[in-house]
Amino acid sequence: MEYKSNIKFSTILSSFGNQADRFCQSGYKSSKTIEEMFILAKKVEDLSGLELVGNWHVNEENIDLIKKYKNEYSFEISCIVIDLFTQAKWQKGSFSNKDNNIRKQAIEEVKKYMDIAKILDCSLIDIWLGQDGYDYSFQTDYIKSWNMIIEGISECAGYREDVKIGLEYKIKEPRTHCFISTIGKTLLLIEKINRKNLGVLVDVGHALYSYENMAETVSLCKLFGNKLFHIHLNDNYRLWDDDMMVGSVHIVEYLELMYWLKAINYDGWYSIDIYPFREDGVGATNESIKWIKELQNIISTVDEKEIEEVINSEDSIKSSSLIRKMLFR
Amino acid sequence: MEYKSNIKFSTILSSFGNQADRFCQSGYKSSKTIEEMFILAKKVEDLSGLELVGNWHVNEENIDLIKKYKNEYSFEISCIVIDLFTQAKWQKGSFSNKDNNIRKQAIEEVKKYMDIAKILDCSLIDIWLGQDGYDYSFQTDYIKSWNMIIEGISECAGYREDVKIGLEYKIKEPRTHCFISTIGKTLLLIEKINRKNLGVLVDVGHALYSYENMAETVSLCKLFGNKLFHIHLNDNYRLWDDDMMVGSVHIVEYLELMYWLKAINYDGWYSIDIYPFREDGVGATNESIKWIKELQNIISTVDEKEIEEVINSEDSIKSSSLIRKMLFR
Amino acid sequence: MEYKSNIKFSTILSSFGNQADRFCQSGYKSSKTIEEMFILAKKVEDLSGLELVGNWHVNEENIDLIKKYKNEYSFEISCIVIDLFTQAKWQKGSFSNKDNNIRKQAIEEVKKYMDIAKILDCSLIDIWLGQDGYDYSFQTDYIKSWNMIIEGISECAGYREDVKIGLEYKIKEPRTHCFISTIGKTLLLIEKINRKNLGVLVDVGHALYSYENMAETVSLCKLFGNKLFHIHLNDNYRLWDDDMMVGSVHIVEYLELMYWLKAINYDGWYSIDIYPFREDGVGATNESIKWIKELQNIISTVDEKEIEEVINSEDSIKSSSLIRKMLFR
Amino acid sequence: MEYKSNIKFSTILSSFGNQADRFCQSGYKSSKTIEEMFILAKKVEDLSGLELVGNWHVNEENIDLIKKYKNEYSFEISCIVIDLFTQAKWQKGSFSNKDNNIRKQAIEEVKKYMDIAKILDCSLIDIWLGQDGYDYSFQTDYIKSWNMIIEGISECAGYREDVKIGLEYKIKEPRTHCFISTIGKTLLLIEKINRKNLGVLVDVGHALYSYENMAETVSLCKLFGNKLFHIHLNDNYRLWDDDMMVGSVHIVEYLELMYWLKAINYDGWYSIDIYPFREDGVGATNESIKWIKELQNIISTVDEKEIEEVINSEDSIKSSSLIRKMLFR
Repeated sequence: MEYKSNIKFSTILSSFGNQADRFCQSGYKSSKTIEEMFILAKKVEDLSGLELVGNWHVNEENIDLIKKYKNEYSFEISCIVIDLFTQAKWQKGSFSNKDNNIRKQAIEEVKKYMDIAKILDCSLIDIWLGQDGYDYSFQTDYIKSWNMIIEGISECAGYREDVKIGLEYKIKEPRTHCFISTIGKTLLLIEKINRKNLGVLVDVGHALYSYENMAETVSLCKLFGNKLFHIHLNDNYRLWDDDMMVGSVHIVEYLELMYWLKAINYDGWYSIDIYPFREDGVGATNESIKWIKELQNIISTVDEKEIEEVINSEDSIKSSSLIRKMLFR
Repeated sequence: MEYKSNIKFSTILSSFGNQADRFCQSGYKSSKTIEEMFILAKKVEDLSGLELVGNWHVNEENIDLIKKYKNEYSFEISCIVIDLFTQAKWQKGSFSNKDNNIRKQAIEEVKKYMDIAKILDCSLIDIWLGQDGYDYSFQTDYIKSWNMIIEGISECAGYREDVKIGLEYKIKEPRTHCFISTIGKTLLLIEKINRKNLGVLVDVGHALYSYENMAETVSLCKLFGNKLFHIHLNDNYRLWDDDMMVGSVHIVEYLELMYWLKAINYDGWYSIDIYPFREDGVGATNESIKWIKELQNIISTVDEKEIEEVINSEDSIKSSSLIRKMLFR
Repeated sequence: MEYKSNIKFSTILSSFGNQADRFCQSGYKSSKTIEEMFILAKKVEDLSGLELVGNWHVNEENIDLIKKYKNEYSFEISCIVIDLFTQAKWQKGSFSNKDNNIRKQAIEEVKKYMDIAKILDCSLIDIWLGQDGYDYSFQTDYIKSWNMIIEGISECAGYREDVKIGLEYKIKEPRTHCFISTIGKTLLLIEKINRKNLGVLVDVGHALYSYENMAETVSLCKLFGNKLFHIHLNDNYRLWDDDMMVGSVHIVEYLELMYWLKAINYDGWYSIDIYPFREDGVGATNESIKWIKELQNIISTVDEKEIEEVINSEDSIKSSSLIRKMLFR
Repeated sequence: MEYKSNIKFSTILSSFGNQADRFCQSGYKSSKTIEEMFILAKKVEDLSGLELVGNWHVNEENIDLIKKYKNEYSFEISCIVIDLFTQAKWQKGSFSNKDNNIRKQAIEEVKKYMDIAKILDCSLIDIWLGQDGYDYSFQTDYIKSWNMIIEGISECAGYREDVKIGLEYKIKEPRTHCFISTIGKTLLLIEKINRKNLGVLVDVGHALYSYENMAETVSLCKLFGNKLFHIHLNDNYRLWDDDMMVGSVHIVEYLELMYWLKAINYDGWYSIDIYPFREDGVGATNESIKWIKELQNIISTVDEKEIEEVINSEDSIKSSSLIRKMLFR
């Protein structure tokens, strides 16, 4: 199998660690050191990038060590996910926290990691506001909260322009309702703040369980300012962020996504973001990459004109026939 | 029971007609003439406005008759819903139809009804693009479609500034995916087109089954340009547009909605938009209005400061306690 | 492409007619006569069976004509769907209707069509209780309703043992809640009534949007009395009964379904049950059958032992790898 | 406020501890000792029962201590939840684990806790098979797994008849698909095993997010053998097991549930089962109980005949009117 060779694969480092949930709090596996996780990552074929989560993987203290591992195991750091969600202090929000002190800490955390990113030759951070939201009715002032988020992100984006901020939306979890929940709201916010280094980080699983079509989602990023900065790949059953391996459920929509990523000239990372609770992390990442390559391979070998013609016909029988032909060559 | 007397209730005229679905195509009731529907509407307590659907209820031919009924039965026309969805010709979209001819017809239809609205002393039309979307993968060019919608709505908004356009979003049905699907996308589009007479028509049922919180949704309309032009009220089980009577399921969230409509100084219609398939239309509308009044009554009698304090505490136990107190006085 | 030749394909006749929904009540196409629909059905490759809906397609009056068409166009009648849902009189239920008179009519309707089935050399009827349910809280006495359904179905099953009854469950639509809603409830009812000629008609789309796994569903039919009598094939996005073409979304789960249908020795019809609102009926049925053949073809050529080994390992990385291998041979 | 005094309230002990999720693994609060949790439980008004989770709260070692606390703080133990889900060893199932050794351990675990229950004067255990299910396609042999579950539960039920087993179903989490997922499947299994001491433990949140109506669910338990053994009370947004305070969302359906629990003569515990991640456990439990009392109070003071008449009319306008009247007296 050949494939479009210029695609760069990345994954989140935590896939090689231990996964816990609220019922099995000690996790389904055993804990790993950072270096053990780098060693496991090395076993994945065609993986050249790693995403790190702030505090979980990288912090001010261990930055030299991370730099060493990164070089020693020859990985690029594709993205740093800012920790605004793993500590109890963020439980009522980070940027939208009504406690000024916490809110300032959140902004400082982002700035600190923008600097750390540069040290690690990484030019992208991920702001995911998972704890910023609400669970119950009459629990928050929506306007105040949104204004705080706008303000906070503006300040971060203005901090240094050489680091890009990918804003990652998610409709729920850990809050029952997150503020930055859909592609529409995310692009609206970005349009409002209007900073060159501020764009979207699309986690396709989050798109799927907001009933978005992944291909439309990335197309809208293109249309509204060429704002697709990064992409997280995984799969789910559309009702929850199951964070399953790529290829588990949505083959057809994934195939369409591959086509549109190409059509909009996306040239960023293809970054796996899964939660292999009961699976071997290396195996699960390998599988995810293999599925993407298969689908990529199809898209890069089928005549583009033919696909365009089918799309422009808006005839779903032709679409079905094309997909069959592409899958079962 | 007393209630905030300045609220104006409206309903969609079709509630008094016959409701059909794909299984019982002849409908669960018998057909009614337009006048019969006006007469039934008159039986609803405290109803002062009617929404009409283009072609179903009003058209170039019967406009004088409608004007006569409107005066005779003393109703205001709160809104005209443009028919871009009841005819087979719209099946692959109106504004985003790839057939130039159909697309032009869609724009002409809107303009025509903007004129008709003025004749009926109505200053608001509803553009709901229910047929503009897609059902299958590889069935549409998202960027092309969105551009066509932006263009079409721009042209309509520019046609005459004395008629307001409420853009009504809906996540699906009749298409499995509609383009204008969530509050985020709607506000993004409105921000992009940037016309004073273009705003949002929030159907709260559509909000609910996109997993939006209704109160947050209307608050965002306020925040992003004071754009809440009109509101459709109904209820559902959050997975489909069941168009049930107000008060059927989401009492708590409705109560919160009432608070926020007041807080953002919404002064438009409270317009019932239900589908009483198996219910008497007069009774179902009456019930819906009575529920709203009860909830309004609570909000207008509880001390505003107390509600604000609870909200600002972000303590959901206080929220729960407040809601209990409000409901079970 | 070769495929397991003993599979018999059937489809519902209405796919060749006009499809309407609540917004476009006159339908997206033009009406067809019964014979026109038979002629269109004839254009579908490898189609040997037709499902008829009572009253819509067949009734006491036109039975000779139907018999003539059936022979002339050489189709078998795979199943007759009893009309307990297309007329306003069923709006508050058929078997569970609190009006004795309507309830008796429902039972008579079934018996009449059991006789008609035999005349058409068809040994299976479909009882789908789409109107038996409720929409609101405090709207029905659940125990009374369930008892009536048990009684009614018992009586029908006892009427003549040479006609099988496939009980088709569906979680909602047209009611917001149907009584016979999931595979569990259906098998429970069947266990309770305990009649040899009473079994399950699994509409896989209904299974999907009840969050069932189709393969588990048919396996349970096997386990609890070998009760899979018939199967309706279509696809959807898991939140509504979209009745799309097979192959639109759930390729992986469909592949697994094909494996389990073989494993449990299902030897009934593979019956397409789609709603091609905006699609050519012949084309949409053709596509559905072609997808099934492709998937069947895979299952019948892969080494059964290999699949069993993967399944028994319960290692989802092996599952993923197997599926990749099967799809991208 | 007065209320039906014979209702006994219980809650799960973990509500007074620390709640963690996959993102904030150290939890949103601080850890508590067992005694600290008993002391907190004592602060809840009208609470007389506690549910314990095996291993988390009670085990062979600390049983005397638990007995001491129970007496000292005068609580009854309403139920013991068997730990078949908190340890990594159960990750691929307990009763349906393909490793004989693990499967035996699961059965032994249940028996052990049946004995422990009796020591604590508790006559009910909860078997919740949260880890028994599957995440991916081609990952399990459904028939084999179900047979193992049937066998295992049979053996446990036969172990000692003086301890009742409440089988608790849940559609997903921690697996993406659990075997014992809906009320239908649960009753089917119970019917099949047919043991006097085997019944259903309905967690109403699990019912809600399987799109069940809670009132219908408990009614079916009555109808199929009077099998409602215990009930877990909480609330959610119908798409996930949010485990929120009672009264947060589904007031109307909860009111109906209270009516039907009375109608079917349910005389067991009203047991709160919430996850107050960010809430004070005492406050959240107090609120839940207060909501139930309010709703109970309504049901016990409204004329039963009137409710029956409305239900028997099957007229949802009357239902709506009744609910309004009950809530806003």
